[in-house]
Amino acid sequence: MRPDQPVQSAATDQEGSGRGYAKGRARRQEILRTAHRAFADQGFRATSMREIAEAVGLSQAGLLHYFRSKDDLLAEVLRLRDEETYAFNQRFGRETGMAALRRLVDLVELNARQAGLVRLYTVLSGESVGAGHPAQPYFISRYTELRERVAGYLRGARAEGLIREDVDVVQAATSILAVMDGLQLQWLLDPASVDMPEVFTRFLDGYLRGLA
Amino acid sequence: MRPDQPVQSAATDQEGSGRGYAKGRARRQEILRTAHRAFADQGFRATSMREIAEAVGLSQAGLLHYFRSKDDLLAEVLRLRDEETYAFNQRFGRETGMAALRRLVDLVELNARQAGLVRLYTVLSGESVGAGHPAQPYFISRYTELRERVAGYLRGARAEGLIREDVDVVQAATSILAVMDGLQLQWLLDPASVDMPEVFTRFLDGYLRGLA
Repeated sequence: MRPDQPVQSAATDQEGSGRGYAKGRARRQEILRTAHRAFADQGFRATSMREIAEAVGLSQAGLLHYFRSKDDLLAEVLRLRDEETYAFNQRFGRETGMAALRRLVDLVELNARQAGLVRLYTVLSGESVGAGHPAQPYFISRYTELRERVAGYLRGARAEGLIREDVDVVQAATSILAVMDGLQLQWLLDPASVDMPEVFTRFLDGYLRGLA
Repeated sequence: MRPDQPVQSAATDQEGSGRGYAKGRARRQEILRTAHRAFADQGFRATSMREIAEAVGLSQAGLLHYFRSKDDLLAEVLRLRDEETYAFNQRFGRETGMAALRRLVDLVELNARQAGLVRLYTVLSGESVGAGHPAQPYFISRYTELRERVAGYLRGARAEGLIREDVDVVQAATSILAVMDGLQLQWLLDPASVDMPEVFTRFLDGYLRGLA
């Protein structure tokens, strides 16, 4: 059988070729969208594979054909989320020092237009501090990496003469990332009271002035 | 029957008098400790009344005798958590302006010795941004109140001449609270890498210098 030949009936379509492949991909996307929404609404632990299967019209066995476990589904949801960050970094990743620090304002502005993604992040990162949560290693290494990245920007700004020599750049990076996360929480809870990009812009101005 | 007369057998003890009352109180405390731990480990939504009942050796009907619903149990866990904050504010609540701002360092140091309470807060606040979470009104009003309180400290510091006239004190308060929350998350995930009180102390120094 040639791989491009659509000989299977719709009912017996399998992943891997022609129309069946396209249908499989579409179904996979639908599962991921459903899981994203469920995790963002109620968290990973409170979401069952059964309710995801029901929401997309599959049996549990059918769902397991696409994702072997809830942990696998979580890993893929987080990977897709990272692609958004990756795309942002590709656009601006060549900047360094103070210019790169200023780009964080653009990132916060982008986040303010993507409440669903931010909610997913806030719910899962909060949940991940619980005992033995499957996303805990992901968030630990993510923050390790982010602290190093932002510390690198601060080192650059120090080399540019814009930040004092005695500033501990890793600690300052930790604080800048902390503001970003904490603002997301307050903004999601009360968007009418917290203008996230505006608050962050003023914060960064004030803080960087303090480090100068 | 005199209320202090222990006539009931252990098996038929009821709340409301004598030994039965003491036993009822102890049982209530045990339920609250169990719920606290379960909510902090796995979140509110993923915790069932059945597992709390099992953990304390009660039937579900027996548990409902103490707390009518999981929402009631959550409300009481949050109320007890607030008492900790209240006790702290009672001790330091009379300070104003810059002195009160500096007290936030003491609060962060206290939190660094209470990982269980901090984890409860981080897990529940993160989870609360999900659709229709029962703790959402609690966290919305908590942040409204905290922003106003810290903004008041900043107003005081401005009156003391320690902060510039053009600083938006509510926005600055929002950022300071955001750092505290974001640091809790990074600290809980990776306590060996994040010295929470140290990072916050340096942050506050730098930020307040920037607002001066």
